[in-house]
Amino acid sequence: MSGKVNIAILGASGYTGAELVRMLWTHPQARIVAMTADRRAGQPIGAVFPQLGGLDLPDLVTINDVDWSGVDVCFCALPHGTTQEVIAGLPTHVKVVDLSADFRLADPETYAQWYGHPHQAVELQKEAVYGLTEIARAQVAAARVVANPGCYPTAAQLPLIPLLDQKLVQDQDIIIDAKSGVSGAGRAAKEGSLFCEVTEGIHAYSVASHRHAPEIEQGLSQAAGHPVMVNFTPHLMPMSRGILASIYVKMAEGVTAEDLHTALSSRYADEPFVRVLPFKTAPQTRHVRGSNFVQIGVFPDRVPGRAIVLSAIDNLIKGASGQAIQNMNVMLGLPETMGLQNLALFP
Amino acid sequence: MSGKVNIAILGASGYTGAELVRMLWTHPQARIVAMTADRRAGQPIGAVFPQLGGLDLPDLVTINDVDWSGVDVCFCALPHGTTQEVIAGLPTHVKVVDLSADFRLADPETYAQWYGHPHQAVELQKEAVYGLTEIARAQVAAARVVANPGCYPTAAQLPLIPLLDQKLVQDQDIIIDAKSGVSGAGRAAKEGSLFCEVTEGIHAYSVASHRHAPEIEQGLSQAAGHPVMVNFTPHLMPMSRGILASIYVKMAEGVTAEDLHTALSSRYADEPFVRVLPFKTAPQTRHVRGSNFVQIGVFPDRVPGRAIVLSAIDNLIKGASGQAIQNMNVMLGLPETMGLQNLALFP
Amino acid sequence: MSGKVNIAILGASGYTGAELVRMLWTHPQARIVAMTADRRAGQPIGAVFPQLGGLDLPDLVTINDVDWSGVDVCFCALPHGTTQEVIAGLPTHVKVVDLSADFRLADPETYAQWYGHPHQAVELQKEAVYGLTEIARAQVAAARVVANPGCYPTAAQLPLIPLLDQKLVQDQDIIIDAKSGVSGAGRAAKEGSLFCEVTEGIHAYSVASHRHAPEIEQGLSQAAGHPVMVNFTPHLMPMSRGILASIYVKMAEGVTAEDLHTALSSRYADEPFVRVLPFKTAPQTRHVRGSNFVQIGVFPDRVPGRAIVLSAIDNLIKGASGQAIQNMNVMLGLPETMGLQNLALFP
Amino acid sequence: MSGKVNIAILGASGYTGAELVRMLWTHPQARIVAMTADRRAGQPIGAVFPQLGGLDLPDLVTINDVDWSGVDVCFCALPHGTTQEVIAGLPTHVKVVDLSADFRLADPETYAQWYGHPHQAVELQKEAVYGLTEIARAQVAAARVVANPGCYPTAAQLPLIPLLDQKLVQDQDIIIDAKSGVSGAGRAAKEGSLFCEVTEGIHAYSVASHRHAPEIEQGLSQAAGHPVMVNFTPHLMPMSRGILASIYVKMAEGVTAEDLHTALSSRYADEPFVRVLPFKTAPQTRHVRGSNFVQIGVFPDRVPGRAIVLSAIDNLIKGASGQAIQNMNVMLGLPETMGLQNLALFP
Repeated sequence: MSGKVNIAILGASGYTGAELVRMLWTHPQARIVAMTADRRAGQPIGAVFPQLGGLDLPDLVTINDVDWSGVDVCFCALPHGTTQEVIAGLPTHVKVVDLSADFRLADPETYAQWYGHPHQAVELQKEAVYGLTEIARAQVAAARVVANPGCYPTAAQLPLIPLLDQKLVQDQDIIIDAKSGVSGAGRAAKEGSLFCEVTEGIHAYSVASHRHAPEIEQGLSQAAGHPVMVNFTPHLMPMSRGILASIYVKMAEGVTAEDLHTALSSRYADEPFVRVLPFKTAPQTRHVRGSNFVQIGVFPDRVPGRAIVLSAIDNLIKGASGQAIQNMNVMLGLPETMGLQNLALFP
Repeated sequence: MSGKVNIAILGASGYTGAELVRMLWTHPQARIVAMTADRRAGQPIGAVFPQLGGLDLPDLVTINDVDWSGVDVCFCALPHGTTQEVIAGLPTHVKVVDLSADFRLADPETYAQWYGHPHQAVELQKEAVYGLTEIARAQVAAARVVANPGCYPTAAQLPLIPLLDQKLVQDQDIIIDAKSGVSGAGRAAKEGSLFCEVTEGIHAYSVASHRHAPEIEQGLSQAAGHPVMVNFTPHLMPMSRGILASIYVKMAEGVTAEDLHTALSSRYADEPFVRVLPFKTAPQTRHVRGSNFVQIGVFPDRVPGRAIVLSAIDNLIKGASGQAIQNMNVMLGLPETMGLQNLALFP
Repeated sequence: MSGKVNIAILGASGYTGAELVRMLWTHPQARIVAMTADRRAGQPIGAVFPQLGGLDLPDLVTINDVDWSGVDVCFCALPHGTTQEVIAGLPTHVKVVDLSADFRLADPETYAQWYGHPHQAVELQKEAVYGLTEIARAQVAAARVVANPGCYPTAAQLPLIPLLDQKLVQDQDIIIDAKSGVSGAGRAAKEGSLFCEVTEGIHAYSVASHRHAPEIEQGLSQAAGHPVMVNFTPHLMPMSRGILASIYVKMAEGVTAEDLHTALSSRYADEPFVRVLPFKTAPQTRHVRGSNFVQIGVFPDRVPGRAIVLSAIDNLIKGASGQAIQNMNVMLGLPETMGLQNLALFP
Repeated sequence: MSGKVNIAILGASGYTGAELVRMLWTHPQARIVAMTADRRAGQPIGAVFPQLGGLDLPDLVTINDVDWSGVDVCFCALPHGTTQEVIAGLPTHVKVVDLSADFRLADPETYAQWYGHPHQAVELQKEAVYGLTEIARAQVAAARVVANPGCYPTAAQLPLIPLLDQKLVQDQDIIIDAKSGVSGAGRAAKEGSLFCEVTEGIHAYSVASHRHAPEIEQGLSQAAGHPVMVNFTPHLMPMSRGILASIYVKMAEGVTAEDLHTALSSRYADEPFVRVLPFKTAPQTRHVRGSNFVQIGVFPDRVPGRAIVLSAIDNLIKGASGQAIQNMNVMLGLPETMGLQNLALFP
């Protein structure tokens, strides 16, 4: 690339929007030319996110007021449902990374079942590439529209796909007990996201009914070569960022936990953002906070034939905006790690 | 009972010791006559725990300085290992509730295997009753020495024992993913318990190697009628108090999640401290914080034949000092809820 | 009193309402006969506050549906503004403790200036007693309507009133830097109260414009005998409960910090809920959390002639519902500490 | 500069050491050639800080094992007291940024009084420059040894020095009420830094006796032109990072709060890391977390003649390691913002 990439961010008033602005601000090739937030149009981004105040950035506008002629890449961080039509209406010279769920499920019937209404842009969905970068790099490189994976699906699929693909674990009775920070619920003012309702406690939510289940199963089924159904139980935790997925699996006949560890280490040896920890080392979400890294740990269970696989990400970065920029880099032929090299902020 | 019960607390400088003092202070029949803390002997309890300052309580003493002649009940909140000999040396007119792990495992070989040394008081261990009150009330009532259950084992066994006892769930592939607050690690100054190392993150620890696993399996095996082995994976969370156990089970042939819910509701209908929530309602640790209550929730899984059982306790109360007082009440023939009627402190 | 006191709680769906329910549930003389929450009418309290589920309590009703004939005491935990007319309309046999700000300011002009509209029940306001219990016990005992003090004013006035009353500190340049937990903002779903917006940070708010300033100044002016104006700067902290007031004062000529400490110790020596800590000992909000206690510390400054006075309360208890019950006890001639003897829940 | 700057970090096993590694890792001109941690010598940094694992960095060594011949710059993050002799013994071709307090106080008697022993390297102290970069840029540029300011002194001096220098505020009765995150206490395993002892509460500590007081007064006295004594009261807060200084001042005759705001805005208009917020806007520590920025807010008080000045920093970055790198950049003639351009990580 010569020259800067001109970028529009749709939905800049949410947490994933703010993360895009934060990271693109220091991305050597990126220039933010438009940011939208319908209800805050006309205001500077610093009025919505004080930590972004005082920068040389355009004011917020409505989607209708974006001049698309000079835009190269659009990040779409709008709510689920409205996104389909917005993206379908964009000029085709604009490459799109969509952070909503709208283009993640390849099967329109599965979409309709879980989201309660028919998909509004079925043709575009066929074109969209599911952008779990480490798994689908070549397709992402060729895509015009990338559906950026959900946070839980990123944490669950990265360790499980290689294991299923290589038949190292059984595809029955996979348990994914996931723990998420509150930013996953977005910035909407909801009673359940209030400090006093979240701090100093934990609870499961959307038990056996969370919309990320079919997304996880889609990827695992592709890897296994046939339909896989999992238990996926998310929990809400008193922390802003981070997802830990504690995954309980039965190994295939004759396979050991060391084999799982070896397979994952080998599969991800050259991946800049995936770190398979030494055998029997537990990842901590705080050790990836603020970074695009994934940490994966593998343990043998005391119960014969079982293993425990743990993965940790920052839900707003590798689980959202960081992976989105990673996908943009791939789509544009830029170095994949450009603008994403920050190490975790700890403590 | 006429008159007050005279109580000694061994190990009053830890969190469970402080909780005993806090709750016994408002217990209508209790009088604290001795509190020990070897390194703080001579100081008032308020020097160790300012929230307990200014009360009419005796100063801390060493164990050797306790006058046992007037003591009716001894709560022992000492570290594992040293407890055995201390309790073995107490005069036999003293009833004992031991909060350490020293008398919990009935099998001396299992003890030696997990704790790394032979048990020092095997005869006394035979006499000791495992005090999961709702399960062993009659034995507790007749006991002189009660081994108070561990925090994780309390959270795991209360929902699982009735289900295994009634053959409603399979005894294979039970997964117990537990999340605990930091007070479970005690008040010792360890790097891993520092605020900066714990806040804003989560991680698993003692994976497949936690000492509460054999304690859980002991109770489940008794309920099932044969040896049961479980996956038990504890996680450390940024909260002071609370344990949530997320338990993943396969149901017996023909059994539904509603059946599990009905069985638990029925089993605990008359229990003052166990609340089985309406079907498909998730318990939150913050809704039992500061109380002796247990909340249990039951959900069907999307995966056929599977169910999810969730239980929440305050690890320092129902998981330690509260259950210890509950056991004392039972041992003395006092109303079981005496001094334990506080509702949860929320928010 | 023979028999139970029948109690109505108006506004039971907020945090102070829930605290009233929690504490009155274990109050030996209280019986809750009505709880209102207009938008949740018809539901059990457990639907609004799960930690209060399963108790033998009446369902929530609208205010209009309360049968006042059998009600002895009404706690009013409604929003500011609407309260005046509600209380003015109650039958006069009902004693009232109002937790809103509506009857706290004796001067209707000050009220109108800070609250933006004329007071709607000026006659009733004249009758109302400002219920800072330790300062106005006799008036509270004789009152039918008690205006329960605000949380910040409770923390600020208890240490300052005796010092001003005894002319030990100058009434100029009093700085009150206060830090509050988030529950002070109530349970309303506001962006500024979201977990992600509050955790891991601190900021001042309502700087030089908080409505508790005139309430504080009212009490200090009465103590000083002439108008006192203070700097009052509240800060929002990542904790659910607690207020710490750090108060910076200049001492009167010849007075030392020891004198302040002696005066406060002496003034509060017989008060069951006020604990003046040893000289140069700092109170911590966590050491009063969950209790009706106040802790006060006094330090000399390095700057000659200055002192630092620190006070800590639980904003929902001594700063709201606990003091309200304390006032009820006084109004009814019950022992003042009845139902309020819980020690702090720490950790 | 052509080529990389070779850097040694003494004391890499503490939080400020880890922050240096984190930031220097992405600094375009920096190459870390040595990291010391006497008790962890021989281990990789990832064994001490897992978030730094897997990087191409040298193993930890003892100070004695550092080969100084190729080292250009040394960051010294050792405990106070031992630092003096270590730095005095370094070869003089090494430029030094010292993060301890050892060279901050220009007056050896003040040092001896507050630190309890005579200074061990008085000559070197005369040479050392106090590196509050925005105030002493020219001296830093010429220095071989820079004493990096303390966290509280950075937060307090940046807003106050211009105001005193321009005689806009009185130098009497300055109150600095500061609130700090726990990382300021370092990574040592102390009871007072445990999660359970810090979360959900606040308290003042080192009241009128904190060692940062003379450091603050040194800078303010220089600005005022004569000795200034302040009230400085630090508080410990349940957050990892951040300092908020709430500063209460009396203005000089005829000066308004707008004047203070104008003066600070003007003074810092060209400073890349200092942001004076719009008049009457409160800074939040979370809006500078993870960045080298300072945010400053100015408010008029209701009390005539008084104003409130608030400043927020990340104590580990602008209050320690970030400012240290900023100073290195200045000392080497590199662009001052190099490697320091990250925006705050929020939420």
